[in-house]
Amino acid sequence: MVCHGDDLGLLRGDGVFDTTRIVTAQDGTSRIDHLEEHLSRFARSISGVDGPSPDMDSWNHLIEDAARSWRIPGEAALKLVYTTGREVVPGPPRGFLIIVPLSETHKEEREGIDVLCLSRGVTSESFADAPWLLGGVKTLSYAVNVAALRHAKSQGADDVIFTSTEGYLLEGATSGLVVEAADGLWTTPTGATGILSSITVNTVFEAADDDGVETSTRLMKRDEVLRSQGVWLLSSIRGVVPILSIDGRPAPQDDEMTHRLRVWAGFEE
Amino acid sequence: MVCHGDDLGLLRGDGVFDTTRIVTAQDGTSRIDHLEEHLSRFARSISGVDGPSPDMDSWNHLIEDAARSWRIPGEAALKLVYTTGREVVPGPPRGFLIIVPLSETHKEEREGIDVLCLSRGVTSESFADAPWLLGGVKTLSYAVNVAALRHAKSQGADDVIFTSTEGYLLEGATSGLVVEAADGLWTTPTGATGILSSITVNTVFEAADDDGVETSTRLMKRDEVLRSQGVWLLSSIRGVVPILSIDGRPAPQDDEMTHRLRVWAGFEE
Repeated sequence: MVCHGDDLGLLRGDGVFDTTRIVTAQDGTSRIDHLEEHLSRFARSISGVDGPSPDMDSWNHLIEDAARSWRIPGEAALKLVYTTGREVVPGPPRGFLIIVPLSETHKEEREGIDVLCLSRGVTSESFADAPWLLGGVKTLSYAVNVAALRHAKSQGADDVIFTSTEGYLLEGATSGLVVEAADGLWTTPTGATGILSSITVNTVFEAADDDGVETSTRLMKRDEVLRSQGVWLLSSIRGVVPILSIDGRPAPQDDEMTHRLRVWAGFEE
Repeated sequence: MVCHGDDLGLLRGDGVFDTTRIVTAQDGTSRIDHLEEHLSRFARSISGVDGPSPDMDSWNHLIEDAARSWRIPGEAALKLVYTTGREVVPGPPRGFLIIVPLSETHKEEREGIDVLCLSRGVTSESFADAPWLLGGVKTLSYAVNVAALRHAKSQGADDVIFTSTEGYLLEGATSGLVVEAADGLWTTPTGATGILSSITVNTVFEAADDDGVETSTRLMKRDEVLRSQGVWLLSSIRGVVPILSIDGRPAPQDDEMTHRLRVWAGFEE
């Protein structure tokens, strides 16, 4: 798979992507997690950069072909990519997919991570009525997310929770935030915050509701979360990751809830 | 020129670029504007994403070769691109250049543009002590800049002035802001604002200082600018562009200063 040097996805980060997990058995057969939800979010992201409705039949065929050809047992990330076209030679938008095996780092991080709170520079209402800020759109422009992860690693941490300028926790660099409080599970609100709707968090919250566990969305500050009963970062590839510490302060642990979250997310039986 | 589908510049916008103008005469010989300044800023941007010091001899040879091969008379953009490497097959960072002829749209916009003020979602101090936000780093993650331009065009405008959440004007989507006041020329401050240092603005301000015109940096709001004597967006390719209106309200015009700015910037004799 190659792309042109003047692809606007490359020169401008002008495009979107979505990622889900593909799990391949020893006999080479694969299953893909929550494909329909990821394709729907991918289509919403494309619409967010003013692209056309994707041809879902073509995407489904491409994904089926790729899944059939991929024979390496284990877990991998299936990435769908859309770019708005080329700069020098104008033409149609471009779509492709790639499959990337799960990294050892991600495997190890499933046991638990230390995170830093880093400012995202925005307020918790910056994205209201500002569609050009691409809140909730999973764009290819992830340089700040990557730089924040690099910064965290340079400080001995594993990951990041982005914060608003008012000090509210927003989301991880590539994951959603879930907190366990006395009255149930909390996550952070999408919309004016610009937070991406997490398919893993949504999946878990639907299953939790079915199991009689209350769920809600709210803005929280770090010290409130440190006084909670448990805190996790959730994403499609890494799954449910307990946060061990925030800014060097120990975070609450609830191993039983970690297990329940993983079952709800489809990462444990 | 092709790149791999798993290039992190493509999948993550994790890389940087710089752009300057190449002007080619009828006999096919070319000159490049302010190459040394652009290479210096490019190196600073690379450092901003934790990359190594670029090998300037190699870049200079590549640029010389490209300029010698490029024989199309007229103006074009010479783009230097750096990406942090590949995701699936880890390896060294990657650099390349492309040359893109000046578009008709950019030519027409030189006569004057209508702009909209659009919030960038950040405060004017968001980037202080937050290097992971990549303030002043010319990253490949320009999706918001492109989306803001698309939004402006959908509203019948040509370009954008980004504003902070306090209402301060920051910069254009791909250009720096210059305002003419009674006491000289103003531009907006870099640093805590996250504004990219504009080589064209710096060039003009140095020449203005030499000609005895006062220059300074300050934060300004829209209404103050509408009461000024003239307002321009400056960039390496489009040059010095007078702003005709801001949010539909007529902006002050000073044709004589437009000419002086263009001479200082090297766009008129």
